[in-house]
Amino acid sequence: MRDKDALRVAVLGCGSVGSQVVRLLTEQADDLGMRAGARLELAGVAVRRLDAPREVDVPAELLTTDAMGLVTRDDVDLVVEVIGGIEPARSLILAALENGASVVTANKALLAEDGASLFEAADKAGRDLYYEAAVAGAIPIIRPLRESLAGDTVTRVLGIVNGTTNFILDKMDSSGAGFAESLSEAQELGYAEADPTADVEGFDAAAKAAILASLAFHTRVTAADVHREGISDVTAADVRSAADMGAVVKLLAICELRETDEGPAVSARVHPAMIPRSHPLASVREAYNAVFVESEAAGRLMFYGPGAGGAPTASAVLGDLVTVARNLRAGTRGAGESAYAAHPVLPMGETLTRYHVAIDVQDRAGVLALVATTFAEHGVSIQTVRQEGRGADAQLVVVSHRATDAQLAATVAHLEEMDIVREVTSVMRVEGESE
Amino acid sequence: MRDKDALRVAVLGCGSVGSQVVRLLTEQADDLGMRAGARLELAGVAVRRLDAPREVDVPAELLTTDAMGLVTRDDVDLVVEVIGGIEPARSLILAALENGASVVTANKALLAEDGASLFEAADKAGRDLYYEAAVAGAIPIIRPLRESLAGDTVTRVLGIVNGTTNFILDKMDSSGAGFAESLSEAQELGYAEADPTADVEGFDAAAKAAILASLAFHTRVTAADVHREGISDVTAADVRSAADMGAVVKLLAICELRETDEGPAVSARVHPAMIPRSHPLASVREAYNAVFVESEAAGRLMFYGPGAGGAPTASAVLGDLVTVARNLRAGTRGAGESAYAAHPVLPMGETLTRYHVAIDVQDRAGVLALVATTFAEHGVSIQTVRQEGRGADAQLVVVSHRATDAQLAATVAHLEEMDIVREVTSVMRVEGESE
Repeated sequence: MRDKDALRVAVLGCGSVGSQVVRLLTEQADDLGMRAGARLELAGVAVRRLDAPREVDVPAELLTTDAMGLVTRDDVDLVVEVIGGIEPARSLILAALENGASVVTANKALLAEDGASLFEAADKAGRDLYYEAAVAGAIPIIRPLRESLAGDTVTRVLGIVNGTTNFILDKMDSSGAGFAESLSEAQELGYAEADPTADVEGFDAAAKAAILASLAFHTRVTAADVHREGISDVTAADVRSAADMGAVVKLLAICELRETDEGPAVSARVHPAMIPRSHPLASVREAYNAVFVESEAAGRLMFYGPGAGGAPTASAVLGDLVTVARNLRAGTRGAGESAYAAHPVLPMGETLTRYHVAIDVQDRAGVLALVATTFAEHGVSIQTVRQEGRGADAQLVVVSHRATDAQLAATVAHLEEMDIVREVTSVMRVEGESE
Repeated sequence: MRDKDALRVAVLGCGSVGSQVVRLLTEQADDLGMRAGARLELAGVAVRRLDAPREVDVPAELLTTDAMGLVTRDDVDLVVEVIGGIEPARSLILAALENGASVVTANKALLAEDGASLFEAADKAGRDLYYEAAVAGAIPIIRPLRESLAGDTVTRVLGIVNGTTNFILDKMDSSGAGFAESLSEAQELGYAEADPTADVEGFDAAAKAAILASLAFHTRVTAADVHREGISDVTAADVRSAADMGAVVKLLAICELRETDEGPAVSARVHPAMIPRSHPLASVREAYNAVFVESEAAGRLMFYGPGAGGAPTASAVLGDLVTVARNLRAGTRGAGESAYAAHPVLPMGETLTRYHVAIDVQDRAGVLALVATTFAEHGVSIQTVRQEGRGADAQLVVVSHRATDAQLAATVAHLEEMDIVREVTSVMRVEGESE
């Protein structure tokens, strides 16, 4: 028997997230119905192959390989998109909205590449497009940024938003192992894919940084706007050097609101950075995620939890589904995206941060003074400098005050040309302190 | 010039929170207007004395001592209540709702005592009653529990929701000082009131526990349902004993969903407890707050930030204000409270937890066996027992497996009657591990 007051849900994709969405929709039907104000009924599940093995039993008559046919059916009210990737996800979401359905998606890549056209389609259709699951899995971060902090001015977001890289860096920190060895371990344990590029080179984190920066600063930021560096060049020596100064290396998604001579501007970037062990993000271990937010009135907030996994991501999807179902029933919609502030995005060269630079130098008198002079010539002020080792092991470790990326790059290029410098062995940004 | 499309906001109370609300409403007017979809205009500020010194300049013509007159004016659309306490706050909120205004409040005491009648009035009026600021200040926790986790089943909430007590316990942990000395320091630094009862005896935390349990379990829980113990009996020895077992003492608000023979039930309590230093809550230092949530699908989440203070609390109030303003403009309302699950609240005697018990004993053979037998007789299973000291300093430290509070109380009463027991010097619950 069909409940004619029910809202009908189409689920696109039945992998690790989709199967958990289907399971929870079925098992928690009574609770979800009470919370949404309407029963949520599974209308269909679009899959690539009807006979693929699945983690959940789906009645055969609900399975279809025709995703477009499913989202354009006139008895579908809500669409959950957990296929991922750009196409066919984009066409399916656009068709669903045009067909009058509200959409919940976990698709960070699509939102970071082309969120604008999706939000525009949602506005035009008068429907919701929600995506809590797209950033940091189960951790509620989209809603807090969009709604809880709507009365505040967010100035900075620092996120550990990729579990794979956090697992690898945590392993390097706790065991002293190098990158390759730690990556292998992550792969064996299922924390890293066979092809780990999207994670370790920061593509996944960059998509999330674009989404966070857009929300936090009411400005359109795409993945292409985000400066991206991965962790494959992080060495055991970098991690040890961080430990020596009471810090830990993390891959951070960093979104900042900066006052410039031309007014407010946004910086969005992903790169490994040293943060002090006393910083709340430093204690985020293994594959956990966390997002640290600084705002003018609220101060420092942190949101912590599992950043991936079928069930946690499904939890975020269903939380959105309950809200968009309530909105649909009430004939209204939630706070849509706003890009009214339209701040410019700063190029990486103008980003201001502190740097940790390790330099192998010749062991002779006056080396420190020469190196210090080089930093000064490029306008980079030194906070601390430490001399280590003797003879062939002589090393200087410099931590600078805030300088632009361009100033630092010029300093490093200059150092590398100097006779007394054998090699600049490590350059890493230092974050997590307001200056 | 009055903007006739603006929404008009009455603020009740102009203390540390109210003055920050007024300041931000004025300074951030453009941003708030863009986000709310309507300009928010200050209609009036109700104060006790017109000539009191204030942290913010309020135009004299907006000040009034007639709060009831203000909330029942027909040009007031939104009311912010930051007076606190039961009356006149309750009458003012009820009058505001009846008058068709939506209400944002930070009043935990009132919500915990009589939330039901307020929510009923909001339902009847078809208006919003939002209260993010009532629990853990600026930390978004109400909205995540109510909305982000609406598709999940929350099983446990552990909160450090009182900054004063966290500051005192953190001080005791880091300095080895006793309670009285640490309280004095907190008072000198402005972290504790001259009369610290509401904080140190757990009344403040109990109100928040009631609110969190109600939300998390869709069940009406009032402050009277919450078992409450403060921290004034926590000794330097307790804190040292916790440190010896790799734990730290925190005042926790604990809300649990328990399966019983009669079905699901709720436990809500506030008491000092030992938690392992590896638990995310253990690293919450000074006066910071954090709420740790366990749910079936999402797993372990934590929300961290400043739990009090004028500006942080005002941030939470304004976030709510933007949402209720949007809803009012759209002719709709947010997800109201739901108590559909209506689980019974367990008495404290049936609460299951682990215990740390320190016992001064006579130094003779067989003492450990006699004590162990006593635990066993009352059905309390021992996990570890440690013998310490000799002669007059002989002590046993027992950590139990999970047992009911009633079983433990009977064990302790029995121990105190035994000849070989000189004194039970410390009984403290151990939390933070799922068993």
